[in-house]
Amino acid sequence: MDNEDQESLLLQGVPDNYGGVKVNLTEPMTIEDFVPKLRASLVYWSNQGTKGIWLKLADGLDNLIAPAKAEGFVCHHAEREYTMLTSWIADVPSTLPANASHRIGVGAFVLNKKTKEVLVVQEIDGHFKGTGVWKLPTGVVKEGENIWEGALREVEEETGIKTKFVEVLAFRESHQAFLEIKTDIFFLCELEPTTFEIKKQDSEILAAKWMPIEEYVNQPWNQKKELFRFMANICLKRLQEMEYMGFSKVLTTTSSGKESYLYCNTDHANLLNATRGLASTSG
Amino acid sequence: MDNEDQESLLLQGVPDNYGGVKVNLTEPMTIEDFVPKLRASLVYWSNQGTKGIWLKLADGLDNLIAPAKAEGFVCHHAEREYTMLTSWIADVPSTLPANASHRIGVGAFVLNKKTKEVLVVQEIDGHFKGTGVWKLPTGVVKEGENIWEGALREVEEETGIKTKFVEVLAFRESHQAFLEIKTDIFFLCELEPTTFEIKKQDSEILAAKWMPIEEYVNQPWNQKKELFRFMANICLKRLQEMEYMGFSKVLTTTSSGKESYLYCNTDHANLLNATRGLASTSG
Repeated sequence: MDNEDQESLLLQGVPDNYGGVKVNLTEPMTIEDFVPKLRASLVYWSNQGTKGIWLKLADGLDNLIAPAKAEGFVCHHAEREYTMLTSWIADVPSTLPANASHRIGVGAFVLNKKTKEVLVVQEIDGHFKGTGVWKLPTGVVKEGENIWEGALREVEEETGIKTKFVEVLAFRESHQAFLEIKTDIFFLCELEPTTFEIKKQDSEILAAKWMPIEEYVNQPWNQKKELFRFMANICLKRLQEMEYMGFSKVLTTTSSGKESYLYCNTDHANLLNATRGLASTSG
Repeated sequence: MDNEDQESLLLQGVPDNYGGVKVNLTEPMTIEDFVPKLRASLVYWSNQGTKGIWLKLADGLDNLIAPAKAEGFVCHHAEREYTMLTSWIADVPSTLPANASHRIGVGAFVLNKKTKEVLVVQEIDGHFKGTGVWKLPTGVVKEGENIWEGALREVEEETGIKTKFVEVLAFRESHQAFLEIKTDIFFLCELEPTTFEIKKQDSEILAAKWMPIEEYVNQPWNQKKELFRFMANICLKRLQEMEYMGFSKVLTTTSSGKESYLYCNTDHANLLNATRGLASTSG
């Protein structure tokens, strides 16, 4: 049997940088066609010294999940478009990365410094439904979206107000917050409004308005619930300039050349941004 | 047909707080048994005004994935133990939460203030393999673990050094960093060592030692790569007390009563912790 014949009996895999192989199946396949190929491939990969196999089955190839599990694969994660199975075949402990474990929430403290008013909303559904509590605009950062961008987007979607990012004031972690086992990290961000006329979103927002900050802070909810009191108090401190300093953003690149935002102490971020001022304003 | 008979023809669902129903199937079922029950249940739920259905299929029930998709379900996410399908049957836009989108990485700046040395390692595998770069201990926060706890754990696992959490100094976001589409948020944490004798982990760590901080910072890698230079520079600034202030942690509770860590400006965190000093030291 020559190489070409042999390859037609194997699943096509692409090596990754960690001693693994990635198989991406997108075309429908019968179990009878799949199982012998998978078995032959496992022997081949094992002989090659492969440590782990990623088997990505596109939506529609769900018939292959059970047969793959019967050959030692386990489910690693899934999205709407695919299910990812893995099999670790090396004798050393698995170094496959874990599934995604977190989502990122954002809350926006949009402060009108002239009037000392803060942008607040009441939501139609959700945790605060029927409580009468005026809350900061909040939302969830989308896959691939930066934290500061998520905050800007949520504010504009919910209230029509355009803003600029100022600082991350604080963040908190909450476990088993969604999908039963996953953690939500919530970033409280200060934003500076550049428009002031509210056009509320009708599908999620019951009401939106500018509210004097003391009135916002002094709501019974924000005083009784410690975490809310702490956050409201931080917002209040921001009214007195320099009484509270958070983290600002600096655009940089990772070692592999991807754009990446670093969030650090604002004094330091200003220094970093200033020393690269010409470069960043021309970009 | 009485209620009991009718129920035996339906899948058992539990209402959630958002107008949805959760179905948790753990026992094997044939497609012939499953499909008529699912269809009857969908009619029943629709008549009840149900907005969305969560269908959790335990590992081993993979035969039901394709038939459920044929009835309008899509894959929402999966873990090793189950696949979660959803179907949104209301006329309004879906409000189902998205899949987890992030993981949390930690890097530990463990500073011996007396000797002005920092704890560094060389890893056997990974990004820095063969570069000779001495790096801070790093790792990934486990599901359900707090950021500060993940940092302490990774340092002790890799080097045997016990530490106390001091501050989050900075964080950065990196998109498409793992599982192709997911984002890694990396928190640079300062830790204070309480032990000093290194016992390195053999499986992942090639070498570990205490290194003069200037030597760490001045490594060519840390000078050439901007993000690393920024972070190394922040570490250096921490040597001069009060030249750089990050976020400390405050233990509090969410509005639903769960323990939750708030990370905020250290001056403010100290104030919050001090005013609750008696309560927290007696706990």
